[in-house]
Amino acid sequence: MRSSNYLLATLKETPSDAEIVSHQLMMRAGMVRKVASGLYTWTPTGLRVLRNVERIVREEMEAAGAIETLMPMVQPADLWQESGRWQDYGPELLRLQDRNQRDFVLGPTHEEVISELVRKEVSSYKQLPLNLFQIQTKFRDEIRPRFGVMRSREFIMKDAYSFHIDEASLEQTYQVMFKAYQTIFSRLGLDFRPVIADTGSIGGNLSHEFHVLAESGEDAIAFSDSSDYAANVELAEAIASKDNADPATATMEEVETPNAKTIQALVEQFGLAIEKTAKTLIVHGANENGEASGLIALMVRGDHELNDIKASKLPQVASPLTFASDDEIRAAVGAGPGSLGPVGLPLPMVVDREVAVMSDFAAGSNKDGSHYLNINWGRDVELPAVADLRNVKAGDPSPCGKGTLDIKRGIEVGHIFQLGTKYSDMMKVGVLTESGKHQNLLMGCYGIGVSRIVAAAIEQNNDANGIIWPEAMAPFEVCILPMNMHKSARVQEVAERLYEECKGAGLNVLFDDRKERPGVMFADIELIGIPHVIVVGERNLDEGMIELKNRRSGDKEKVAIADVVQQLTATNNR
Amino acid sequence: MRSSNYLLATLKETPSDAEIVSHQLMMRAGMVRKVASGLYTWTPTGLRVLRNVERIVREEMEAAGAIETLMPMVQPADLWQESGRWQDYGPELLRLQDRNQRDFVLGPTHEEVISELVRKEVSSYKQLPLNLFQIQTKFRDEIRPRFGVMRSREFIMKDAYSFHIDEASLEQTYQVMFKAYQTIFSRLGLDFRPVIADTGSIGGNLSHEFHVLAESGEDAIAFSDSSDYAANVELAEAIASKDNADPATATMEEVETPNAKTIQALVEQFGLAIEKTAKTLIVHGANENGEASGLIALMVRGDHELNDIKASKLPQVASPLTFASDDEIRAAVGAGPGSLGPVGLPLPMVVDREVAVMSDFAAGSNKDGSHYLNINWGRDVELPAVADLRNVKAGDPSPCGKGTLDIKRGIEVGHIFQLGTKYSDMMKVGVLTESGKHQNLLMGCYGIGVSRIVAAAIEQNNDANGIIWPEAMAPFEVCILPMNMHKSARVQEVAERLYEECKGAGLNVLFDDRKERPGVMFADIELIGIPHVIVVGERNLDEGMIELKNRRSGDKEKVAIADVVQQLTATNNR
Repeated sequence: MRSSNYLLATLKETPSDAEIVSHQLMMRAGMVRKVASGLYTWTPTGLRVLRNVERIVREEMEAAGAIETLMPMVQPADLWQESGRWQDYGPELLRLQDRNQRDFVLGPTHEEVISELVRKEVSSYKQLPLNLFQIQTKFRDEIRPRFGVMRSREFIMKDAYSFHIDEASLEQTYQVMFKAYQTIFSRLGLDFRPVIADTGSIGGNLSHEFHVLAESGEDAIAFSDSSDYAANVELAEAIASKDNADPATATMEEVETPNAKTIQALVEQFGLAIEKTAKTLIVHGANENGEASGLIALMVRGDHELNDIKASKLPQVASPLTFASDDEIRAAVGAGPGSLGPVGLPLPMVVDREVAVMSDFAAGSNKDGSHYLNINWGRDVELPAVADLRNVKAGDPSPCGKGTLDIKRGIEVGHIFQLGTKYSDMMKVGVLTESGKHQNLLMGCYGIGVSRIVAAAIEQNNDANGIIWPEAMAPFEVCILPMNMHKSARVQEVAERLYEECKGAGLNVLFDDRKERPGVMFADIELIGIPHVIVVGERNLDEGMIELKNRRSGDKEKVAIADVVQQLTATNNR
Repeated sequence: MRSSNYLLATLKETPSDAEIVSHQLMMRAGMVRKVASGLYTWTPTGLRVLRNVERIVREEMEAAGAIETLMPMVQPADLWQESGRWQDYGPELLRLQDRNQRDFVLGPTHEEVISELVRKEVSSYKQLPLNLFQIQTKFRDEIRPRFGVMRSREFIMKDAYSFHIDEASLEQTYQVMFKAYQTIFSRLGLDFRPVIADTGSIGGNLSHEFHVLAESGEDAIAFSDSSDYAANVELAEAIASKDNADPATATMEEVETPNAKTIQALVEQFGLAIEKTAKTLIVHGANENGEASGLIALMVRGDHELNDIKASKLPQVASPLTFASDDEIRAAVGAGPGSLGPVGLPLPMVVDREVAVMSDFAAGSNKDGSHYLNINWGRDVELPAVADLRNVKAGDPSPCGKGTLDIKRGIEVGHIFQLGTKYSDMMKVGVLTESGKHQNLLMGCYGIGVSRIVAAAIEQNNDANGIIWPEAMAPFEVCILPMNMHKSARVQEVAERLYEECKGAGLNVLFDDRKERPGVMFADIELIGIPHVIVVGERNLDEGMIELKNRRSGDKEKVAIADVVQQLTATNNR
């Protein structure tokens, strides 16, 4: 491709509405353009990257035995009514009517359509297992589309749906997909982690997210430093640092704390270690029928964070988790929220596992302006119910039993689920088994955010000059950058010759034949992130050489004109 | 691919709602499944064909210098308001609102979105010409979706848009696209014709449709038997069969025709040649401001058809063309529509070119129950205005001046337009010219109905047993069909070996490893239309042979096991 026949569309200025680096660089490198909020045109450079991602995803899905289909974006409401999602799905589901006032949706996923297909086309256990995928345009009417294609409304997803006669078959395909995802993200050249994910809202037994690691990631992920264990921080199990509390060493003592409304103030007033303090949070409780009923106290160590998801899963706690107001607390306890603690608290209480092994710790006295120091369980107050209530922290022991946890940020680019029979029960997707009985199928579903991967890769691979593409994703593998070509017939001749050679060798090459100053051309090509740049200039030509520059390392080397294409085809990771 | 790991989804019965052969065969061959009216899932066999079409279209568009982009399906209404199409486009344009009650459309084409992109990204004549294309999902809310993917609501289209500083550049790209389309349809293995098309509604100078020839086609196309001339019958110019009328040979005579309300009745009553009769049709006229005004008579030969498009383009005729009612005719003429003619008609009249060279012809007398025989222009009545008013017929002289016309039916699969400045004027798509002046761009647009091509190819390529794919489109190039493999280890061994050999040679191969009777397997594979079938059976194995069957010719030949893959790779047209 010659720049002069192409739409480079690079920008010098960063658009003001681009908040994160991938969005900024995708705009500046001419990869996407905004059409409306959350709606983008993929301009040529962006589309070339997107197609590379699609190709690798498709190849690995096929290699894993999945079969490609293509379902419509516009889906009839009746299927969604059947699955129950017409009612359950919020305003992210864009609903529309056709000219005959029939209801449709723009598909955010395709469980209903694929279930409809399979219940009609598959009648016997002999046709199973079956794993069908598509790479297709989806729509979610996000309340706040942002970060460019990272959270857009129209986007491209690979979604796959597998169907099984039993758990063992589902488990087997799930493992095949798990491995295929690892291969896909490895081939794309991304630093990623599979992470244990919540199955709560969708149901089913098992779910993993695949995260591209990047500082800007929306999710915090906890990893063991000594095993494969990785989980979203919100889901990672927090383990107590020891099996039992140390023995008490001091008498409980009430102290005046008129100005200590926070843990930090308490720590400062008495020179305490924060690990020797505990905080008490009052939330709405639930009765045995799950109905909201009274208040309940939750307690975590002073330096720990309550984990809302874990707390809301406790049977004694109302879901979703809601905190009691100051007035509610005062009415129930007789003191404000800054002076609460376990001793003399007239409310049921659940303490975090770590709190249960604390000794000689400080907490409120349930009287305004006063705390107790050196509280010990058993001696001063009975140990209440114990549960995992907190977010893990870096340095915590890993719940897998090996090593300690580290925490990094990630961008979710894939998600695999064992759905079980959720959809097949609602939509009656079944077959005749070997013994002739009708049985609803088990389902798995497997998503990859194809367009999001492009942004996530940039979050992980960039520097001050622009994007640094992993080779497999790059819009062009090589750029030929002739310096002042319009002034030098020799530069032009060598550049043209190398361009033909690159094409002949099957390299995906951009020939920057614009009449621009070399500085402008270098800036654009670095911004776009092409991995290899062949710089053709008068000075090196005197020695029969060009300069080969590596975008990632910044290394420059002189290479004989006759050798450069061979060197590139030998080294690049296609 | 093994059948046992695939979703063949063939049907024995033809679905009752499939009216045309391509729809029937696409359902029966497991290529598509209906999700709702005009909405289809492409099942694996169909998608494989669709992807072949996409690939060839993409390769040839790129070879012709077009650059791929991807625009969103959901488009903001404000762009459509700017172009005027928000008002002009009928109910085929599906309009919707997002969660914030903002108006959007599902894109039926992308002139607005591409114009918005180009007016922002292109500022100088130096960036031109530019030809951008996409292969993308479109939506048109057809009033009567039918014929499967031939006229569906959601469909895949290749649309390209070119931008130019002057007519010469537009003309050049138009010709490049014309040639690219010829290459695309040739590579697809289709019998097609480029056809001169109407530019009326879209405007611009020139337009061609590309039709796949098939008896079931919705359009009739007129071809010269001696040149490249081809035009939609509705647009083909009709030429008179001679320069001047023959001299009169008989006196005009009024005859009683109480039962002759039609030309056919008149012909039968008097034993006339139908070419010696003329019919008179009364339509609403227009004044010089184009407003409906009075009635006007149009006259064509008895065996000719009035061409509505040509008639409605006459300045004297109201557009759209509307016929006068019987009551209106009787009020204006004093006779019913079965007895009209040129002699004594109290209305303005336009006659077809062929009518103008008739002599001794019969027509109504403008009195009920009576006609004139042997009317001659000049002698019996003045020749009125003359125009091209009729559809051409097979055997007519070609308007190109060479040969005579033949008429075939076609399915429109491509359409190219010179749009001129229609959109760039409305949306202010301009650049600075070399002399520094602002100028709006000339535009071309170039569409291919990618999903429709699949159906059109089947209309042209089928027999009683199913589809006969052109090799380039086939879902699989080769099928290995082992007979009773589960009963013969030898058949299985050879089939497996050939399967591996085919894959190794890069052939796109289906291995029909189902435990089905050979008859069932043959029927399925013929239905699906795989071009080459390797039949592995006990009898031929005794001689070290397999049978190679050609789907199109039906030819069977015995080939040595060791030679078959080489023979296939040598002969198939990939």
